[in-house]
Amino acid sequence: MENMLREGERLDVLKRENIQIIQSSAVFSFSLDAVLLADFAELPRVKPAKIVDLCAGNGAVSFLLTGKTKNPIVGVELQDRLVDMARRTVQLNRLEEKVSFLHADVNDVTRFIKPDSVDVITCNPPYFKLTESSFTNELDAFAIARHEIHLTLDQLMKQTSHLLKMKGKAYFVHRPDRLMEILETMRKNRIAPKKLQFIYPKQNKEANMILIEGIKDGKEDGFRVLPPLVVYNEEGEYSQKVKDVLYGEQ
Amino acid sequence: MENMLREGERLDVLKRENIQIIQSSAVFSFSLDAVLLADFAELPRVKPAKIVDLCAGNGAVSFLLTGKTKNPIVGVELQDRLVDMARRTVQLNRLEEKVSFLHADVNDVTRFIKPDSVDVITCNPPYFKLTESSFTNELDAFAIARHEIHLTLDQLMKQTSHLLKMKGKAYFVHRPDRLMEILETMRKNRIAPKKLQFIYPKQNKEANMILIEGIKDGKEDGFRVLPPLVVYNEEGEYSQKVKDVLYGEQ
Repeated sequence: MENMLREGERLDVLKRENIQIIQSSAVFSFSLDAVLLADFAELPRVKPAKIVDLCAGNGAVSFLLTGKTKNPIVGVELQDRLVDMARRTVQLNRLEEKVSFLHADVNDVTRFIKPDSVDVITCNPPYFKLTESSFTNELDAFAIARHEIHLTLDQLMKQTSHLLKMKGKAYFVHRPDRLMEILETMRKNRIAPKKLQFIYPKQNKEANMILIEGIKDGKEDGFRVLPPLVVYNEEGEYSQKVKDVLYGEQ
Repeated sequence: MENMLREGERLDVLKRENIQIIQSSAVFSFSLDAVLLADFAELPRVKPAKIVDLCAGNGAVSFLLTGKTKNPIVGVELQDRLVDMARRTVQLNRLEEKVSFLHADVNDVTRFIKPDSVDVITCNPPYFKLTESSFTNELDAFAIARHEIHLTLDQLMKQTSHLLKMKGKAYFVHRPDRLMEILETMRKNRIAPKKLQFIYPKQNKEANMILIEGIKDGKEDGFRVLPPLVVYNEEGEYSQKVKDVLYGEQ
């Protein structure tokens, strides 16, 4: 196993799914965002479905989704360094029949995946707008994963809509300060927002993450705001919900 | 005191503000929505400011706001029966210098209050869209207070924007299922959404109310989602936050 790791890489364990995932603090490592997104997404467990994870990074969301469905998952990632890590994680866990990675720009994704063919899309996209104050000279792996250098919110929603079947579902994790733009770009691209969940770091803190479900060509009514998801309890430990998501029901 | 009440009316107490308010189950009585809206709104305590409460009902929000500012408050209400109740509450509590009520349609309000002159607006509007399934034949006081019979969301936002000064603030309480329409109509009418708070009946329940702050001609950045407000604790009693709002800090 050791020789599957490159310099600076380490193995972490996705406990609930019992998958060893190659991580690298120097390039990209997944965080709670990915875990909560994968938990939030609803996938058909058995019924055949095409499932695509955009902006897949080192594959965390794709790997986490394997625990929820018998369908194969395709992760799409632009950065070759991350695709390489994700593919080695596939090999390491013998998941070749469950997960594969496409090295592609989301903006070109319909060259590889047929439009109007996907049942479920998940995406943990770059959170930050490129502004003059962004460190735009640091066009490294981190910056690409975190800033909208290669993919804006509008481009993401356009491609998501392009890929999805009618009534196909999309799941995103993002920041609350982008909420209005997210809702607007979804609707503009024929994805009706249906469910929203706010993640609060503690009970008395402002939300720092949102989870959102949209349905292509869905109806606009019946919009719901799910119960609050609080990450840490008053003792500073993970809340029961987060423990369940990370380690499985206990 | 008794002779100030008409048939079917009763006196309730706004405990924190020590105000006796005339209520009527047969016509309209305020609920937690009003109390949370008044608590959410930020008003200048001393600095002179023009404060208007639209869709004032029996005046609950207007009366609650008196505890937060030295400025007078003007409540605007369409239904004469409710204006009458609110005015008798003013008299009963000797609040003539703090609160007054304008019997007017919000759609005509700029005939009485100068456009671009108001610092803070609060509003607990009718929540429900008029649809074919609404009981539109019951055009009674309840229906008018609850359904968009005389005031749609778009009309409300238009009038709010018309009344507010540049950088004036507006506070609304509404239902989560209308969230997208609320955000859209606010922005369309030059009111930038700035803060959002979700009210959850219990920790594990979906949100059933939202509180939202907007600023006329405000910047779109810096949008925040405040900590979750949970109404009942696990024992089914009011949470500490709700007790504080209802009865004052204890």
